[in-house]
Amino acid sequence: MEKITINQKILSKNDLNAMHLRNKFATNKTLVINMMSSPGSGKTSFLEKVLVRLKDKYNIAVIEGDLQTENDKQRIEAIGVRAIQIQTGGACHLEASEIDKKCQELGYENLDLLIIENVGNLVCPAEYDLGQDINIVMLSVTEGDDKPLKYPTIFFNSDIFILNKIDLLPYVDFSVEKALENARTIKNNLDIFQISCRNDEGLDNLQAFIETKILAKKRCS
Amino acid sequence: MEKITINQKILSKNDLNAMHLRNKFATNKTLVINMMSSPGSGKTSFLEKVLVRLKDKYNIAVIEGDLQTENDKQRIEAIGVRAIQIQTGGACHLEASEIDKKCQELGYENLDLLIIENVGNLVCPAEYDLGQDINIVMLSVTEGDDKPLKYPTIFFNSDIFILNKIDLLPYVDFSVEKALENARTIKNNLDIFQISCRNDEGLDNLQAFIETKILAKKRCS
Repeated sequence: MEKITINQKILSKNDLNAMHLRNKFATNKTLVINMMSSPGSGKTSFLEKVLVRLKDKYNIAVIEGDLQTENDKQRIEAIGVRAIQIQTGGACHLEASEIDKKCQELGYENLDLLIIENVGNLVCPAEYDLGQDINIVMLSVTEGDDKPLKYPTIFFNSDIFILNKIDLLPYVDFSVEKALENARTIKNNLDIFQISCRNDEGLDNLQAFIETKILAKKRCS
Repeated sequence: MEKITINQKILSKNDLNAMHLRNKFATNKTLVINMMSSPGSGKTSFLEKVLVRLKDKYNIAVIEGDLQTENDKQRIEAIGVRAIQIQTGGACHLEASEIDKKCQELGYENLDLLIIENVGNLVCPAEYDLGQDINIVMLSVTEGDDKPLKYPTIFFNSDIFILNKIDLLPYVDFSVEKALENARTIKNNLDIFQISCRNDEGLDNLQAFIETKILAKKRCS
């Protein structure tokens, strides 16, 4: 078997900020999810679909990270969920200090769920802790089943792997079996969900999973 | 209209290396193309398709950039084209010094066409000059027509925009018109090609374009 090397950087300043951030989220019992993927894998479409199911039950906010534009913030607001945009300019990832600043604007209190949609990038965001409880890596079936092996750090640093756009499987050369095997080669205890935001396949399970996590966080002392 | 800010960094050490590299390519009359896109947009599939048409007419080599694996190098070699892999470990882009090192291994002389397949990343590679003649940005129709506005630096720094996987247009919500308009908002003189590596649509035009550029470089003194 091919050897896959995973490098872990020491990012002390961001790690320290993330630690403080994690403490604040713990105090407020806010579940924090950091979503990472390539551009166009469907992070915002997924949020539109799942948050519309959760928004009347929980107090939710979304932080949108993009190089430019406020498109994603507007899409989230259009479904009636609070959103705040970070425009990074040229920067390829979000950092804990930016999240802290935006959370002060949002208000830390009474937030059940905070979702951070990171900059579309399968490389750099993986190495920056944002104080999250759950890292999600999303891959769409149009991107190729080899990607977990080619971008191992982000799969290794994630808790959940969402395989998106499974409605397109008949039209692309993509082996689900191989993709999952490759992902498990990098991290064998990844929680894996297969979904389609076009026909809602798999969304019930994922919604239930997120709700379980929100409630578990509430019970934490 | 929304204001799009494009930041340009000063990367003096890499710029200096790229300048030397560009001089070497000029001396040897080698056309150099740097291909950039998100992971899974289809860079390697495109190279497989187009290089098989060119390999008997020109002396070609490919430098493959990936965080891990030699998969892409093996795919290029399988069609009978020389390929050399750069495994970046965790690094999110290639730099000119790495290209120089690999070109010394390949031999600078008698190379008509060098293709650099950059790390799959729509952010960071855009800011690193590799001594190329042509920067290509590739986007597939599954990634969304808003991407040129959200990742403006890479579109601004490119000469050619390849819209790939147009065979999937019937199955996705993607407006070609909007994508091209967005790209031209960022850079109005982009050369644009629409292709499918599944049914070969658009490949004749792109092949002809590349051959014209190879021959033009040969005529440069």
